[in-house]
Amino acid sequence: MKLLRIGETGAEKPAALVDEDTYVDLSDVVADFDEAFFGTDGIERIRPVVAHRTAAGRTQAIGTQRIGAPIARPHQIICVGLNFSDHAAETGQAVPSEPILFTKSPNTLVGPYDDVRIPRGATKTDWEVELGIVIGKRASYLDSVEAARDVIAGWTLVNDVSERAFQMERNGQWLKGKSAETFNPAGPWLVTQDEIDDVRSLEMWLDVNGTRRQNGSTATMIFDPFFIVHYISQFMVLEPGDLINTGTPPGVGMGFTPQVWLNAGDVMELGIEGLGRQRQNVVAHR
Amino acid sequence: MKLLRIGETGAEKPAALVDEDTYVDLSDVVADFDEAFFGTDGIERIRPVVAHRTAAGRTQAIGTQRIGAPIARPHQIICVGLNFSDHAAETGQAVPSEPILFTKSPNTLVGPYDDVRIPRGATKTDWEVELGIVIGKRASYLDSVEAARDVIAGWTLVNDVSERAFQMERNGQWLKGKSAETFNPAGPWLVTQDEIDDVRSLEMWLDVNGTRRQNGSTATMIFDPFFIVHYISQFMVLEPGDLINTGTPPGVGMGFTPQVWLNAGDVMELGIEGLGRQRQNVVAHR
Repeated sequence: MKLLRIGETGAEKPAALVDEDTYVDLSDVVADFDEAFFGTDGIERIRPVVAHRTAAGRTQAIGTQRIGAPIARPHQIICVGLNFSDHAAETGQAVPSEPILFTKSPNTLVGPYDDVRIPRGATKTDWEVELGIVIGKRASYLDSVEAARDVIAGWTLVNDVSERAFQMERNGQWLKGKSAETFNPAGPWLVTQDEIDDVRSLEMWLDVNGTRRQNGSTATMIFDPFFIVHYISQFMVLEPGDLINTGTPPGVGMGFTPQVWLNAGDVMELGIEGLGRQRQNVVAHR
Repeated sequence: MKLLRIGETGAEKPAALVDEDTYVDLSDVVADFDEAFFGTDGIERIRPVVAHRTAAGRTQAIGTQRIGAPIARPHQIICVGLNFSDHAAETGQAVPSEPILFTKSPNTLVGPYDDVRIPRGATKTDWEVELGIVIGKRASYLDSVEAARDVIAGWTLVNDVSERAFQMERNGQWLKGKSAETFNPAGPWLVTQDEIDDVRSLEMWLDVNGTRRQNGSTATMIFDPFFIVHYISQFMVLEPGDLINTGTPPGVGMGFTPQVWLNAGDVMELGIEGLGRQRQNVVAHR
């Protein structure tokens, strides 16, 4: 299934995608795609509902409705830093021997087509196309990398927007440059695990103003998604609905010579094979 | 007012302290001390209720009931690192020119007398008595340090438990050593701002097995609580109910020669003037 949330900010309704412009409304069955939903095996509960309603033609057109992030605000957003060897090289940092973890404020989560706002005082705002992992079950001290499969609800496309001056030049730690409002576009869909044959071999790309800036594949991750979930579970308890951003391939603005930063008026477009596309307008600070 | 939450884990009821062993139950008036409560001016709404019920003698004994953290699981827990000049010195690190920020997973929050569990694989588990700030209103780009007063609900005592090997020796960032289950005892009370004359002059202390280890005062903070809230609001949006741990004075286990670490069977007792006391048994990993 491809799950999505349709409606204005704060009033999104849970739904399942039928085809490009058609969905099944699920708001009478589940309140939201949130911790309670994932924590009570929600994905398996809605499968027969989606199948039945699709077969019965109980579908609606998306049309011009807003699409929100595919999950409600999570308990936490954990990110993996420098998880592609080429990206580590372009930032001038060593390939990590074990995953670097940092966080974004959960309230950075926005929809895939919402505006991204430059923070006040920002000078080095940057893009990062990433594979997002949505946690499906509470996870602590997983016994093996393989066991991570059972606690993952699915995958989503994210843009891990970053302000490099805040991240690198303001006395630490990285969350300072990762947590500004609108800095975590996600979606359009949460794609359940069964829909993706091999998450370790998906093309990913990002354009700024029509110029291809990032072009990579999840195949060049240093630590794959299952390794990451197993690893994080040794340090903290992952809750249902938590989001993990797994790192970005080469081509961020920081990596160019001279460096390239986002400005109001810019347009970001990005995608991952099988997970859909995003488009954000960059707007000036409040 | 001193607000507290009474009952078993996950079933705590909101209450207000009347005297040492007596409280007014508020569970028929508010669902919890959570984001919705603080975001709808909950503290001012319950003031007349608490006054009326106290005057009418509608009080109950705490007795042997469990006391939980004084707030529900928050949207985020932000921490300030190295915020006491003497503590920075004992850890061998420079006094920061502006606040260092890091996070703990929100699900680390436990009650003031709950067990603290050593994480699996831990070798350097440490204590940190800290002043906690509870945010009362959504805050973004506060205009001044003074404006921070209006968005603070009150203060609480926290123990920012830390695993130094995970924090410092596992390839970053600090959250890796700060986010284990049970690592954020808080309470017993949320003390509203009006109850504390000067939050910048409170004695604070921590004992391990009856030996005084930390002995300090909020007077020696490098960045005071109002500065901190103003500062953080420039980088992210603070939500009602968010918790900010403001840093620890000298005397952590890492600072001794030889270093001293927590073991199962140890007992931590800590307090801040006006904010009450905590006591935790340290227990072995799961």
